[in-house]
Amino acid sequence: MSLTLTPLIGLPMIQKGDDLAALALEALKRQGLKLQSGDILVIAQKIVSKAEGRQINLTKITPSAEASALAAETNKDPRIVELILQESQSVIRKRKDVLIVEGNLGLIHANAGIDQSNVEGDDTALLLPVDPDTSAKALKDRIDTACGTDIGIIINDSVGRAWRKGTVGLAIGVAGVVALQDLRGVEDLTGRTLETTEVGLADQIAAAASLVQGQADEGTPIVLLSGLNARGQGTARDVLRAPNEDLFR
Amino acid sequence: MSLTLTPLIGLPMIQKGDDLAALALEALKRQGLKLQSGDILVIAQKIVSKAEGRQINLTKITPSAEASALAAETNKDPRIVELILQESQSVIRKRKDVLIVEGNLGLIHANAGIDQSNVEGDDTALLLPVDPDTSAKALKDRIDTACGTDIGIIINDSVGRAWRKGTVGLAIGVAGVVALQDLRGVEDLTGRTLETTEVGLADQIAAAASLVQGQADEGTPIVLLSGLNARGQGTARDVLRAPNEDLFR
Repeated sequence: MSLTLTPLIGLPMIQKGDDLAALALEALKRQGLKLQSGDILVIAQKIVSKAEGRQINLTKITPSAEASALAAETNKDPRIVELILQESQSVIRKRKDVLIVEGNLGLIHANAGIDQSNVEGDDTALLLPVDPDTSAKALKDRIDTACGTDIGIIINDSVGRAWRKGTVGLAIGVAGVVALQDLRGVEDLTGRTLETTEVGLADQIAAAASLVQGQADEGTPIVLLSGLNARGQGTARDVLRAPNEDLFR
Repeated sequence: MSLTLTPLIGLPMIQKGDDLAALALEALKRQGLKLQSGDILVIAQKIVSKAEGRQINLTKITPSAEASALAAETNKDPRIVELILQESQSVIRKRKDVLIVEGNLGLIHANAGIDQSNVEGDDTALLLPVDPDTSAKALKDRIDTACGTDIGIIINDSVGRAWRKGTVGLAIGVAGVVALQDLRGVEDLTGRTLETTEVGLADQIAAAASLVQGQADEGTPIVLLSGLNARGQGTARDVLRAPNEDLFR
């Protein structure tokens, strides 16, 4: 009846080419955890990006004139701004120390999700996975085949928000899980049709797991969530609001 | 080591004047759950509002001219719009079927959080608690006194977002919990100072609990969260971004 979130412990620092499915399965075995269908593994974006080789050596980046101008305007490293522009569809807001874009994945976030923390070497940046939904599906298939299960995978990232301070975990890659729960037509306890018609289910799972993953030296980027009925065929794109329906860009 | 979220079951439909602290303590006892310091009870806004008598009989509301004009513009019930304006500091966006405001609590949300679902009678609306931080503190004090504990209380609501479809649980009242976790100066696994400096901890707790509370006929508005180190003196206001720092209003 309870929902439980359990961090997988003892994972190594992830390097390019590491087999995350194998590492997760080994960690589960060490901890005596047996996956059940419907369980969800939430995996921090950072280790997916590292395993997929999305580390970028900044010394090899030559900023364009556009990137250099934008870097001056926003007080940022021109090489990072060059990467942000490459990883983005459009700039949503810019200001000193702030650059918010619509990334190539359709996410609206600061710096196109490019991270310089937890990356070895100050001249290294880490990009988001090229296609996190596909990354999630590949991990799901590997683990389901090994365990005979039908699990869910969510790849999450910590993202800032309009109006509210503090980052929260969001689902940027989804497989085997409902991303956007449709409650249209569902009745409430009094028989009245619910006004809230859609729930950001995968994002809530991502936020819950973020509580356990820790932000710094804890280093538990994979979390097992059990006890939630959220099986489905969602993708991270299900949650994206179309520009013509979005009042805040 | 795991974080667990357990719904309290068997709560009655909450009415004005109900003693939520007593009802929560009875439910915990029925389920054989013993509170520990550091545990957090997450309580759905809806039952706090009901217990505090925030039901409004719409037949007694006379819309102002301003409310009537805005209701026509947004295709809403003029009586509801009158309440929204009373509960708001300013209108942020308006459009057919959409009215997004900065509420009196500083939250930016649709319809000032006024709800017509799960409220008995179609001519009834339910307002947010007048001061959810104070409501949370009062519940904490009652339960701590009864149990000899130092617990946290979060009052959560399901709120829509910029850019992304689907509501997520947000913390609108906080007591005994860190609301905004400050990571400035914390080093990551590689010894580099983290770039993400603030985490919306209470909102992530609110979202996690929302997974368990259910949205409709499940009816488990109180959730016990155990296993998280989040003790502190936060308030829901800690998370509000000042208008001059907010690029999206």
